[in-house]
Amino acid sequence: MAPDRSVLLADSRYTFQARQEVSSARVHIAKHGLLRAAAEAIRQIRRSGPVRVAYPPSQTTVAQKRTVDAQTRGRIRWVAADNLVERLRAVKDEDELSRMRDAARLISTVFEQALRFIRPGVREAEVAAELEYRMRKAGAAGPSFETIVAAGARSAWAHARPSSKLLMKNELVVLDQGAILRAYCSDMTRTVFLGHCPKKIRRMYAAVLEAQEAAKSVIRPGVKAGAVDAAARSVLRKCGLARYFTHSTGHGLGLEVHEMPRLGRGEPARLEAGMVVTVEPGVYVEGLGGIRIEDDVVITPRGGQDLTTASRELFEL
Amino acid sequence: MAPDRSVLLADSRYTFQARQEVSSARVHIAKHGLLRAAAEAIRQIRRSGPVRVAYPPSQTTVAQKRTVDAQTRGRIRWVAADNLVERLRAVKDEDELSRMRDAARLISTVFEQALRFIRPGVREAEVAAELEYRMRKAGAAGPSFETIVAAGARSAWAHARPSSKLLMKNELVVLDQGAILRAYCSDMTRTVFLGHCPKKIRRMYAAVLEAQEAAKSVIRPGVKAGAVDAAARSVLRKCGLARYFTHSTGHGLGLEVHEMPRLGRGEPARLEAGMVVTVEPGVYVEGLGGIRIEDDVVITPRGGQDLTTASRELFEL
Repeated sequence: MAPDRSVLLADSRYTFQARQEVSSARVHIAKHGLLRAAAEAIRQIRRSGPVRVAYPPSQTTVAQKRTVDAQTRGRIRWVAADNLVERLRAVKDEDELSRMRDAARLISTVFEQALRFIRPGVREAEVAAELEYRMRKAGAAGPSFETIVAAGARSAWAHARPSSKLLMKNELVVLDQGAILRAYCSDMTRTVFLGHCPKKIRRMYAAVLEAQEAAKSVIRPGVKAGAVDAAARSVLRKCGLARYFTHSTGHGLGLEVHEMPRLGRGEPARLEAGMVVTVEPGVYVEGLGGIRIEDDVVITPRGGQDLTTASRELFEL
Repeated sequence: MAPDRSVLLADSRYTFQARQEVSSARVHIAKHGLLRAAAEAIRQIRRSGPVRVAYPPSQTTVAQKRTVDAQTRGRIRWVAADNLVERLRAVKDEDELSRMRDAARLISTVFEQALRFIRPGVREAEVAAELEYRMRKAGAAGPSFETIVAAGARSAWAHARPSSKLLMKNELVVLDQGAILRAYCSDMTRTVFLGHCPKKIRRMYAAVLEAQEAAKSVIRPGVKAGAVDAAARSVLRKCGLARYFTHSTGHGLGLEVHEMPRLGRGEPARLEAGMVVTVEPGVYVEGLGGIRIEDDVVITPRGGQDLTTASRELFEL
């Protein structure tokens, strides 16, 4: 379909927003559901034979596809096409990069301010509250995901939701935070220690930081996403920590907090200038705790460039 | 499958959490993705002929189903079964209701505190920041959804994200907020006016409040969900505002902010004692603004009972 015949289907909750924000497509506000409106639009195509409809199999439910099929009486020839929009969004233009730089700087400043509030006796949820409060005071529309503040044994849960647990002396605290500024996301993790950090944990921290630096150092256009992951993993393997690194090294970032490309094991996609990715190796040891260090990195012709600016030294608070 | 043979598939991010929180199923941490683990489990069933697998078509993507089919070589006979778990969760027990009562009371108190901060010159995002900060200070794990603070023309967007817009004199402000307390959600909306409220808006407000009260008054076990929606809609129709009420009257609430039942047009599901629903009619007039009033209501044998306690009068701030 030519751009001038593009139609955006939305529902009545988005009437005004669509009118304000959509410029290159006709907006159709569906009264009885998006699927029925889509089926209706397909039925109106005056051409004999099947209508080819591109759809994302990994974002379309079995029920949605079935409904449209039933309402178009099998006239559709489905063409599986995942990530059509997502691919367009992976490479950022100058305006987008400028917003993302600001969003990354904002979260870095907020984290540095929050360091004052992180101390034994404060609850995880209170620290998260401080972080999100400060993001917004600094101009963010809000957090780009639910802020993670996980202390002690809970820091070993890579996706802990902040709880009423009190921070205690001699605990690791993982802080994973991001802000939305002018519609674009940042995403940064730092790990601090409450008290004097024992050597064992200091060594683990150094290993994670080295893994992160190794991953960053291989970033440049043309490199496979999987090679960035492999660089981080290989440092942790050398340090005997590979089995504690239980997630991918990073992911694209932009309008959403998870975009393309994924920096995972064996990912064949190649990096391009203008992509923005997180680089976030981590280790999680049950009982002992977790350590993750995450920055946002833009891919330039000369390599990766940090957007997040907060210090990566191990703070003992 | 008998309960003692239940297996929960999770990935390594949830190893420790699953160990702590799961009691009545064996936990299997999938190393290579949940789908592959599911296919593997199905392949190990020693029985000739097809294996019946219940799945939720509205929560299963085309890609997921295809992957499992390919990895089990067509051995599966799929049985569409939406909402098996959701139905179990719709009716709350005493412990759940006590948590929900606390979560509703918390958000009511937080809103009343926040009234002091709502005034011309403050940004939408700052008010949202105050609300979420205070939720957490009051013991919440966090907001149960992204807090909505929408002022002026933006209040007519039913799902506006808080922006850097300054609140101004003579504007409506819609505040939609909820907190998670001991894992359960609350969800409450109030609408305030900045300055002296003109008659026209005052009349609209009264109509929405009357619609909400009408909806609440028909709530009792055995009533169809659609009848609650119809009661709200009929009041707004009488007031000439029906076309501005662009969403459903409410939804179930519990561990998640949207649960069963949905209080929408023509919904045939019947209410049962122990269900908790929101009742939230609203009108949205482009240019003028929006008004929504939302409470959480538990269904008891004698009718609906408000869990949220904040005043529903029209505040002029």
